Amino acid sequence: MSDSWISPEARLGKDVRTGWGVVVHPGVTVGEGSRIGDHCVLGLPPAEGRAEPLEIGPGSVIRSHNVLYGGSRFGPGLEVGHHALLRHGIVAGANLRVGSYSDIEPEAAIGDYCRFHGYVHVGRGSRIGHFVWLYSLVTLTNDPLPPSHLTRPPVLEDGVVVCVGATVMPGALLRKGAFVAAGSVADGEIPAGAVVRGNPGTVASHVSLLVHPESGLRHPWTEHFADAYPAEARERIARLGAEIAASRRVLKL
Amino acid sequence: MSDSWISPEARLGKDVRTGWGVVVHPGVTVGEGSRIGDHCVLGLPPAEGRAEPLEIGPGSVIRSHNVLYGGSRFGPGLEVGHHALLRHGIVAGANLRVGSYSDIEPEAAIGDYCRFHGYVHVGRGSRIGHFVWLYSLVTLTNDPLPPSHLTRPPVLEDGVVVCVGATVMPGALLRKGAFVAAGSVADGEIPAGAVVRGNPGTVASHVSLLVHPESGLRHPWTEHFADAYPAEARERIARLGAEIAASRRVLKL
Amino acid sequence: MSDSWISPEARLGKDVRTGWGVVVHPGVTVGEGSRIGDHCVLGLPPAEGRAEPLEIGPGSVIRSHNVLYGGSRFGPGLEVGHHALLRHGIVAGANLRVGSYSDIEPEAAIGDYCRFHGYVHVGRGSRIGHFVWLYSLVTLTNDPLPPSHLTRPPVLEDGVVVCVGATVMPGALLRKGAFVAAGSVADGEIPAGAVVRGNPGTVASHVSLLVHPESGLRHPWTEHFADAYPAEARERIARLGAEIAASRRVLKL
Repeated sequence: MSDSWISPEARLGKDVRTGWGVVVHPGVTVGEGSRIGDHCVLGLPPAEGRAEPLEIGPGSVIRSHNVLYGGSRFGPGLEVGHHALLRHGIVAGANLRVGSYSDIEPEAAIGDYCRFHGYVHVGRGSRIGHFVWLYSLVTLTNDPLPPSHLTRPPVLEDGVVVCVGATVMPGALLRKGAFVAAGSVADGEIPAGAVVRGNPGTVASHVSLLVHPESGLRHPWTEHFADAYPAEARERIARLGAEIAASRRVLKL
Repeated sequence: MSDSWISPEARLGKDVRTGWGVVVHPGVTVGEGSRIGDHCVLGLPPAEGRAEPLEIGPGSVIRSHNVLYGGSRFGPGLEVGHHALLRHGIVAGANLRVGSYSDIEPEAAIGDYCRFHGYVHVGRGSRIGHFVWLYSLVTLTNDPLPPSHLTRPPVLEDGVVVCVGATVMPGALLRKGAFVAAGSVADGEIPAGAVVRGNPGTVASHVSLLVHPESGLRHPWTEHFADAYPAEARERIARLGAEIAASRRVLKL
Repeated sequence: MSDSWISPEARLGKDVRTGWGVVVHPGVTVGEGSRIGDHCVLGLPPAEGRAEPLEIGPGSVIRSHNVLYGGSRFGPGLEVGHHALLRHGIVAGANLRVGSYSDIEPEAAIGDYCRFHGYVHVGRGSRIGHFVWLYSLVTLTNDPLPPSHLTRPPVLEDGVVVCVGATVMPGALLRKGAFVAAGSVADGEIPAGAVVRGNPGTVASHVSLLVHPESGLRHPWTEHFADAYPAEARERIARLGAEIAASRRVLKL
């Protein structure tokens, strides 16, 4: 059960499994133990014909109907849903998860352990730290006067959370652990740990004040959700949580 | 004209037609007279390797590039656009229509004759009644303190209409025939027949007050749009319409 | 490297290249020098079995996983991203660019040199002029009383710009060079060159007042962005820019 086209110039590690209808172009390296789903296309564009290397770390799971261009590099444990598009010039750290229908545009830089849900659009050149969450339909824009040749990609520091349907405007700078509420628009510099609400968004509170009354759970999530990450990430998560919690003292509301 | 991989352990009913590049894993049952479009993948995940049954009712039309996991059950007359994703543990009634790019997450329960347009995201565990409409880009969320292990999927009763780009918040309970306006956010309990507008959404009126001045048509849609459904559904639609209309007397505005 | 199904009743021009897993149904014409990416499906639906002609102009680039129905006609230089859906009855001019995950519904009429980014939904019967920009997640709706049999597709005149996440309501008429801000909702008639903001959207200013302070660049974009178009379009762009600039004198704010 395999009818695929794998270039002899691609390098698939030990125990890599590929599905049906998979196309792997020259210059692609897939780390050992990875799985490539049906109807995926790996490698080639932009300058079709010339093969830019695509590196996918070991232990990755690329589900069906995904497109990953040549010219990008993903750390170990990459997980991609279905129908996603990861273009060229992306550099991503360990254990990135990209949801179905998400589109990461060229030259994005992404840290370790980031989690993107579905329909996420990461605009060209975005800079994203570690442990960042982007929920469904989040858009990171980059043109401050559309359409123009100007490009001002946003910067999202470690531990930022952007909720469903929110938009991050060109040139925005979201400091550590900033939280953008559902459907809101974040622009300019957002202080560490700040909660942004509304369109245009304004700083409404600090994340440590976000509480779920029924359960008593509160932000930052680093206290009660670290177990959702691999064990080797936990110490970094604890440090990040302490920094975000500490930012409350300096946030002027 | 058919180059596909159909498992010998799948059961395709009489007169089922499959397109090009179709992958059908073990444990899949497709009812008679159905059509499966090009590049679809049916069955398997989540626990790849073990084949959970996927049941697709007779007379279904699954267009191209769709992914349906094993472990779900769809009634007769399922219709799916292109590039959709229907994951495991879904139980859906008769004649569900799912638009292109829509993503139904695991364990959703869906009644009869529902209509979802494109880019609809139904979060894990959502409970959806009969004759529900979800328009483009509607998102049903379920985590009240993202990210967390908490999960509070919303409940949408019969005849609910959620318009373009609206968001249904975790734990929301939309009573019969509630109507969420375009781009609005519905949270908490929404009374039967109520119209919700804004972010955060508030109850603005009753659906029976939604009128199209030019044509004189008004809500509930059950009066002027029942002919868009199969004949056997009409009596249920009439009963539902009467209930929604009656809710006007009890709605406090 | 080609495992595809090309109907003998399709006509592929000189130097047309097709990828892997491409399905081309009868009645499809692809102009010379075009490129069709992996896993695309061209032609057929709606009345599957009867082949409506699909015409794709010369020099087109259709990337992977796209679906184009029969019964549509696209001018030269069409460019389509990945995972897009272009249904039947569409008539589009020269050099249309359609981003990934975009869905153009039946009977849309589209002028020359339009640019649509990703996740754009163009509702059935929309009428779109020349040099129109639709950014990510823009939705053009058409049912004024959803759900109903009423249909009032919007009209977007030349040079209209609709920013990220904005919604155009049924029956809206956007005059030349109107600009809809990110996340806004445009309804009714919008005067030439007007900037619309908010939900519900109101006219906030004239595009010529949109300035990027850092660079000094301002709208209309026709002054500083004409070089992003083929040389033969530049004279038309200059004329359009003059008209939009002139509309400032007649806009009442």
